[in-house]
Amino acid sequence: MSDSAMFEQLGLIGCGLMGGSFALAMKKAGLVKRVVGYSKSPSTTDRARQMGVIDVEAPSALLAVAGADIVLVAVPVAATEATLKAIKHLVTPQMLIMDVGSTKADVVQAARRALRDQVGSFVPAHPITGREVSGVEYAEAELYSGRQVILTPTERTLTVHLQKAEEVWRMLGCRVQSMSPEAHDAAFASVSHLPHLLAFAMMNSITSQDHGDMFLSLAGPGFRDFTRIAASDPKVWRDILLSNRDELLAQSRLFQQAVQQLEQAMQQGNSQALEDLITLASETRAHWRMGAQRTPTDS
Amino acid sequence: MSDSAMFEQLGLIGCGLMGGSFALAMKKAGLVKRVVGYSKSPSTTDRARQMGVIDVEAPSALLAVAGADIVLVAVPVAATEATLKAIKHLVTPQMLIMDVGSTKADVVQAARRALRDQVGSFVPAHPITGREVSGVEYAEAELYSGRQVILTPTERTLTVHLQKAEEVWRMLGCRVQSMSPEAHDAAFASVSHLPHLLAFAMMNSITSQDHGDMFLSLAGPGFRDFTRIAASDPKVWRDILLSNRDELLAQSRLFQQAVQQLEQAMQQGNSQALEDLITLASETRAHWRMGAQRTPTDS
Repeated sequence: MSDSAMFEQLGLIGCGLMGGSFALAMKKAGLVKRVVGYSKSPSTTDRARQMGVIDVEAPSALLAVAGADIVLVAVPVAATEATLKAIKHLVTPQMLIMDVGSTKADVVQAARRALRDQVGSFVPAHPITGREVSGVEYAEAELYSGRQVILTPTERTLTVHLQKAEEVWRMLGCRVQSMSPEAHDAAFASVSHLPHLLAFAMMNSITSQDHGDMFLSLAGPGFRDFTRIAASDPKVWRDILLSNRDELLAQSRLFQQAVQQLEQAMQQGNSQALEDLITLASETRAHWRMGAQRTPTDS
Repeated sequence: MSDSAMFEQLGLIGCGLMGGSFALAMKKAGLVKRVVGYSKSPSTTDRARQMGVIDVEAPSALLAVAGADIVLVAVPVAATEATLKAIKHLVTPQMLIMDVGSTKADVVQAARRALRDQVGSFVPAHPITGREVSGVEYAEAELYSGRQVILTPTERTLTVHLQKAEEVWRMLGCRVQSMSPEAHDAAFASVSHLPHLLAFAMMNSITSQDHGDMFLSLAGPGFRDFTRIAASDPKVWRDILLSNRDELLAQSRLFQQAVQQLEQAMQQGNSQALEDLITLASETRAHWRMGAQRTPTDS
């Protein structure tokens, strides 16, 4: 712990995979001296302390915030508003508060309602990372390293906090960009929430069939990768699908049209049309690189 | 090269990823003394020889078969019938002929029509492996190692050839099982062909949107794995989707019902129903292991 740490005390609310990994990363980077943590489940908080993810257990979300100069709210998105309401009494204008939720328009609304005149302290954040496992036992300091982080500040976010938030994530090895909550939610409905919905549906479609068990025993590496995200945490994804429902349903309709195009070519036995559609998909995917910066010529 | 190799000469028709890897694996295992190869594209055949994947270039499919005691047809499934017709003249009852196609009912029909009284030499095979790249330059001796291979013999397949086929794949490190072509095609429509169709549609759905490029730049590891198979070879997959069309469209309808179940729960704001559906998917996927043997209690 350096005397010149950027922050004195991190108040961590939610000591699971995302929150626990943030605490470990902050400590490893020497950005914080002390982590005070709270989880809804006392056994999680206890394990987090035993693992050294947090230094002190707080008996409530409010007390995790007391004396903190940085607060991370790492709870399922639907719990954001109640959590922010619970801590509002101890939020100060000097305090940087962030979340790590996968949806942003609803989080921004929740923060406005819950924090009111203190909403300037809140910088909505979405680090693009995760694992198909959950819980503090999987927390790791490197979870955020090399990833993108999207910040969706509102007109009331204080510039000082936005800049500090950018600095924190950069020092954890992330690339940071800002966009509106609405642009964020449309993008992630498309490239994250819909793939999850489809992967869940794929598993359920197979298990609902008489021979589903036999089918699954034959599945290979393509299936393994395609369905990896289907093992994601049910409560976390229930909240994400619900809170970004409208964008997600819109993306699902567009996706369904793309499926129909392929199926139509199949039904018509139109070999060339089918090959053209697959070639478009194949080339787009072959040239895509995760986290690649878009260059002006890409647009 | 051992004097006691199981086979004297492999006739390889199609020197791409699958065929080339089979030749390399057979050589590495000491199962064959000599590989004579043919590809439709002379530059592929040439490169295969330069890489040591094949020993001798044949000027035609027919001449690749001359003198072979084992033949592997590793071409897109729609080319199977023409290929078998082209070699029929030199097929002998002593020769083991296999394919590696991802669909089997159509291959069996093609073999019946093309090979007629020699169809007993043909053992339809589907090794469950592959990569999202294609071409002999990606061929590797380990592609089949540890994978499952499905054989779909017909009532006319000679037992001696079926047993030899099982032995070959086992010696390459595969687990082998037999089933009917129809059972095979239903299973793979579900766990392989439909995921490919959906991954292709996912890419096309995004690129068809105004902000598709921006969406793609934000996509993370979940998207990366979900869409990996979208980069697969267009001609190979055009053929697979067409030749297993009926099973695939049936699976697509079942899948669509599973999507609708999830969407209905979202639209109704039925949080518990949505969580239950995701939990079912998540637990099934979390317990699934690729290639796990089913035990009696699994059924």
